[in-house]
Amino acid sequence: MTDADTNLSNLTTLWLLLGAYMVFLMQAGFALLEAGSVRAKNTKNILIKNLMDGCLGALVWYFIGYHLAYGTKDSCTGGSDCNGFVGNGADVLMNKAAELAPLGNAGSGHYYAGWMFQWAFAAAASTIVSGAVAERCKFGAYLAYTAALTGVIYPVVVNWGWSAHGWLSPWTGTEPFLGANGMIDFAGSGIVHMTGGVAALVGAIFLGPRTGRFSPSGECIDMPGHSSVLVALGTFILWFGWYGFNPVSTLAFEYMETAARVAVTTTLGAAAGGVTALSIHYGFTKSLDVGPMCNGILAGLVAITGNCVVIEPWAAALIGAIGAAIYYGFSALLRKLKIDDPLDASSVHGACGAWGVIAAGLFAKQKYVLNDYGAEGGADDYGALYGGGGKQLGNQIAGVLAIIAWVGITSSVLFGVLKYAGMLRVPVEEEEVGLDTSHHGGNAYNFEKELDSKA
Amino acid sequence: MTDADTNLSNLTTLWLLLGAYMVFLMQAGFALLEAGSVRAKNTKNILIKNLMDGCLGALVWYFIGYHLAYGTKDSCTGGSDCNGFVGNGADVLMNKAAELAPLGNAGSGHYYAGWMFQWAFAAAASTIVSGAVAERCKFGAYLAYTAALTGVIYPVVVNWGWSAHGWLSPWTGTEPFLGANGMIDFAGSGIVHMTGGVAALVGAIFLGPRTGRFSPSGECIDMPGHSSVLVALGTFILWFGWYGFNPVSTLAFEYMETAARVAVTTTLGAAAGGVTALSIHYGFTKSLDVGPMCNGILAGLVAITGNCVVIEPWAAALIGAIGAAIYYGFSALLRKLKIDDPLDASSVHGACGAWGVIAAGLFAKQKYVLNDYGAEGGADDYGALYGGGGKQLGNQIAGVLAIIAWVGITSSVLFGVLKYAGMLRVPVEEEEVGLDTSHHGGNAYNFEKELDSKA
Amino acid sequence: MTDADTNLSNLTTLWLLLGAYMVFLMQAGFALLEAGSVRAKNTKNILIKNLMDGCLGALVWYFIGYHLAYGTKDSCTGGSDCNGFVGNGADVLMNKAAELAPLGNAGSGHYYAGWMFQWAFAAAASTIVSGAVAERCKFGAYLAYTAALTGVIYPVVVNWGWSAHGWLSPWTGTEPFLGANGMIDFAGSGIVHMTGGVAALVGAIFLGPRTGRFSPSGECIDMPGHSSVLVALGTFILWFGWYGFNPVSTLAFEYMETAARVAVTTTLGAAAGGVTALSIHYGFTKSLDVGPMCNGILAGLVAITGNCVVIEPWAAALIGAIGAAIYYGFSALLRKLKIDDPLDASSVHGACGAWGVIAAGLFAKQKYVLNDYGAEGGADDYGALYGGGGKQLGNQIAGVLAIIAWVGITSSVLFGVLKYAGMLRVPVEEEEVGLDTSHHGGNAYNFEKELDSKA
Repeated sequence: MTDADTNLSNLTTLWLLLGAYMVFLMQAGFALLEAGSVRAKNTKNILIKNLMDGCLGALVWYFIGYHLAYGTKDSCTGGSDCNGFVGNGADVLMNKAAELAPLGNAGSGHYYAGWMFQWAFAAAASTIVSGAVAERCKFGAYLAYTAALTGVIYPVVVNWGWSAHGWLSPWTGTEPFLGANGMIDFAGSGIVHMTGGVAALVGAIFLGPRTGRFSPSGECIDMPGHSSVLVALGTFILWFGWYGFNPVSTLAFEYMETAARVAVTTTLGAAAGGVTALSIHYGFTKSLDVGPMCNGILAGLVAITGNCVVIEPWAAALIGAIGAAIYYGFSALLRKLKIDDPLDASSVHGACGAWGVIAAGLFAKQKYVLNDYGAEGGADDYGALYGGGGKQLGNQIAGVLAIIAWVGITSSVLFGVLKYAGMLRVPVEEEEVGLDTSHHGGNAYNFEKELDSKA
Repeated sequence: MTDADTNLSNLTTLWLLLGAYMVFLMQAGFALLEAGSVRAKNTKNILIKNLMDGCLGALVWYFIGYHLAYGTKDSCTGGSDCNGFVGNGADVLMNKAAELAPLGNAGSGHYYAGWMFQWAFAAAASTIVSGAVAERCKFGAYLAYTAALTGVIYPVVVNWGWSAHGWLSPWTGTEPFLGANGMIDFAGSGIVHMTGGVAALVGAIFLGPRTGRFSPSGECIDMPGHSSVLVALGTFILWFGWYGFNPVSTLAFEYMETAARVAVTTTLGAAAGGVTALSIHYGFTKSLDVGPMCNGILAGLVAITGNCVVIEPWAAALIGAIGAAIYYGFSALLRKLKIDDPLDASSVHGACGAWGVIAAGLFAKQKYVLNDYGAEGGADDYGALYGGGGKQLGNQIAGVLAIIAWVGITSSVLFGVLKYAGMLRVPVEEEEVGLDTSHHGGNAYNFEKELDSKA
Repeated sequence: MTDADTNLSNLTTLWLLLGAYMVFLMQAGFALLEAGSVRAKNTKNILIKNLMDGCLGALVWYFIGYHLAYGTKDSCTGGSDCNGFVGNGADVLMNKAAELAPLGNAGSGHYYAGWMFQWAFAAAASTIVSGAVAERCKFGAYLAYTAALTGVIYPVVVNWGWSAHGWLSPWTGTEPFLGANGMIDFAGSGIVHMTGGVAALVGAIFLGPRTGRFSPSGECIDMPGHSSVLVALGTFILWFGWYGFNPVSTLAFEYMETAARVAVTTTLGAAAGGVTALSIHYGFTKSLDVGPMCNGILAGLVAITGNCVVIEPWAAALIGAIGAAIYYGFSALLRKLKIDDPLDASSVHGACGAWGVIAAGLFAKQKYVLNDYGAEGGADDYGALYGGGGKQLGNQIAGVLAIIAWVGITSSVLFGVLKYAGMLRVPVEEEEVGLDTSHHGGNAYNFEKELDSKA
């Protein structure tokens, strides 16, 4: 390589590392958002889960998940050795395990930085689930689903959608399996958020609602979280981290102008989502509450994630606003169905994740589709609302359905087995006293009596 | 462009984006600082306002404010079509609104990244006000002043001081309107902080003090905030974010060595401000309290913002220390005048903002003035204390007075109209029960009885 | 310089600045970790100390410490004028003080950015101590030890290990004084963390345990901190900041691929540390507590810091796991010895810091030792477990012992003098009522009665 090439390569490495750090910080955002949204007596429980998502997630992703997602067999030079279902990770895994240095693509230029970036995404996907199963899930069950999600379920979806051999991937170097541009899911509305959100929904259904969540007559009883400050701070940190999640998904320093545009669409999506959810909630309740506004911001962010690179700024605001409405409606629907998702994780990440993928099929502007990635003149297939035909929209819907099916089925098996083995839910007494006292060595907070008496 | 030019351009984009993200994170810092400084019963209220500053601010800044600040008419090629008062944003706005893609300078290289950076600044300016009007301002009034500030009042000041046509701007490419170096306000001690601080003061005056803040005999009664942890964490995050605010205001990657020097002066200003305020407070009260120290750090940061690029490190420490003293004195003065600014926003951002602009006229070192921006040999006018004459100092004072006049008058009209329309202040019963209960769906905190009884 | 050289130089400046900002944010992480780990009545006290570590640390480091660490006499061109004990800082200091612009190496390319990065490290070193002496140390004593640590004790260690003339340094440009590769301590397991940790241990010993920490019969009585949320958030922020601490310690943009590898080893060390500590604690207590898990993550990070650049990923996980076990065991040992270190700072930073330095002598892979820094073919001396001989391991142990001796002796003198002058520990009444009430203007938290009654 010439010096200039080295420099550019190093710049891409820097870019990926900064993105990885920012997305990693989202773990702190999720931890705070979730801690603030549960009752004080289950605070330590949710914190431990979020810490473990980073820790266990790193080990599982390093030794297993990454290889299933992106691993390539030595014999893969095209053809059947490069299947589009689980990559060739299993093979890579076996070979590399022997060496105790399992570096899927260690030879490639940005292996380490790329691994960092992908690890942070994997940890985010599994953290989403912890919100939906909060306040009643056994720790062993948590360990099982986190390992399964980070090790198998999520890597397969990544392989489908982002790897060089995936059947949904636009990055195959040849005509995608589905034609058109494959499935456009730039930073993972579907691949990351919907995957987490669908597993979250399945977990919430198998666990059943928290004790006392629905009255005998079937009414939903409000169970407010214990700290709006934690919810708001978590949201701010998540929003900040999303600037790693979306713009850095350009994956190469050359596309920095594209990244800047992605930062703007991300911002407008979040902003419109927040304003919309607060307005809707105010319309229904006349209260300006922190929780719905924060979830609206997150709904906007999730909705924009998959399409932020192919849309115009005005569309970003619209997609974010619709995302907020979808979150609000889906959340109401779940309550009606007596499904208890304490964090609205399935509404925010699942429903809005699906919307984000579909929105790419509606709003993708011709000149942004692939064009920024080297091709001249724009793609033949693009957003249906721009007159780009129905093929791309069809692909998007196909991708959404495929991911729902894969994640829905595998996580149903997982949570089903855990449930029928009695390993899924804590006994009601432990739930009532709170998980912190029953499992985590006591309360998360200790305000001394001296302090209380002065207050 | 050659590859090298593209690389450099992309590096500037990266630089601006990182700055934007860090300044955006300051919203979280402000939210925590303000939440910790108000009583617990108004926590959600202040959180919602800070979240809205980011959200509503983004939409207003995207569709209106940015154009007034930096918009350029097609017909502007110099001369009267390029007026120095509100740019030509109104014209741009009209043209672009039709296209539903309102990109003021979309053609220019760093439009998207530049917009991101400027958006974060605009949100900061409007957030400052929320501190001064905390605990008693109606939400409708908040929406009105935020929209007015982000959409009109602040953009006009930006246009004056930073645009290519502003009458205070050093960046006109020709002799500035005021001569010498125009007004030196590098990262916005005056343009951002004083603008926010003056509007904050006007808001606090029109609203009147919180119920119970002054005894019938006129004594000021202490109303401590509810969490020093939030105050300290907010301050740390603000300090961190300021490394985006100041160093990235070099705006181009070429000036990275200058940015590093700015990081050092910023650090020393903050450090000296913190130590000074803690010392003064200890001298008066014999207590080492968190609030004054944090405000001292912020006072140092505000004071250094406008001049950090033109001063030597030792001067940075001095300017920060004086800033802390000014904050402390101005805050005492306001209490004497029975003006209630719960966050000391007008002292920290207003008074220290003015000091920061003036300090540039005193301490600007010849070789740093413009020299780093391309000119050879240093400017003819520089800091009065270095023997640089009185012209620059005069310009600085003129700029301060002009900004005070513009912001003071417009925000007086705004808050005045709101007040006489009865839309400004909540009823005293709502204030006493707390805004969270009366407007935001209940308390910000819910510590269960189980938990309390164990504490 | 050519344009390309300037660009590369600016990239290194950017790299150092980003590292500095991230390591600075670790101050917030330490503040939260420590605040959450002490009782509520001492919250403000610990916050003020952490704020002061940044503020006072900046001033002392700017005017004194940095010169002792890295200062070079004009007359130093090799030979005795360039001694390896305290650099030539004293001389530099005297010369420069006269100029009121004390820039040790202001001429060199990255002076300002380098200073920023080093300042953040110095602040971290002194913050470590505040945890061990928490809840009972006088503020004057705190000021004394912070100034001594930042101004003298720590700079000397830095000079030994990292400067161009240090007797332990691999960066002398010639054969290191100790032979082999000098002491390998890449980002400072020993130089930063063990220095802080040893001073912390000495402070804890001289202060004696908190009142009530040990029962008359000698049993250790649990004194839980007041907020697990603060502990967890602090840990996340520290982990995030560590990506500045370790990868940016490559110090030059050219080594970006190395930095990416360092990010991965850092991640695996943290992850393995967290999982291991939680497992050990669960094994002993059957509780899954937040504190031990967070300390395990930090133990892993401290352990990996000195060797992250010379080891393979699998070794990173192993070193982190062993680090967690060492923290857990050392902490138990201290409790047995009736030494009270409220934050386990001496276990996490001291014991694991020593382990991190020694681990480099065991696990350093030949091709990573110096090789990434320009030499061809790898070093002659490397990890003993790879067959690299005992010389490097011997150097590592010698370095550890030397740092322990220097820091142990100087801080014993310091804390000893403070103790016998009666300036070290607050009276027992003040300790019992809490430092916040007795010294810091009242409680850190104020939850109004209205709020309590609703809770």
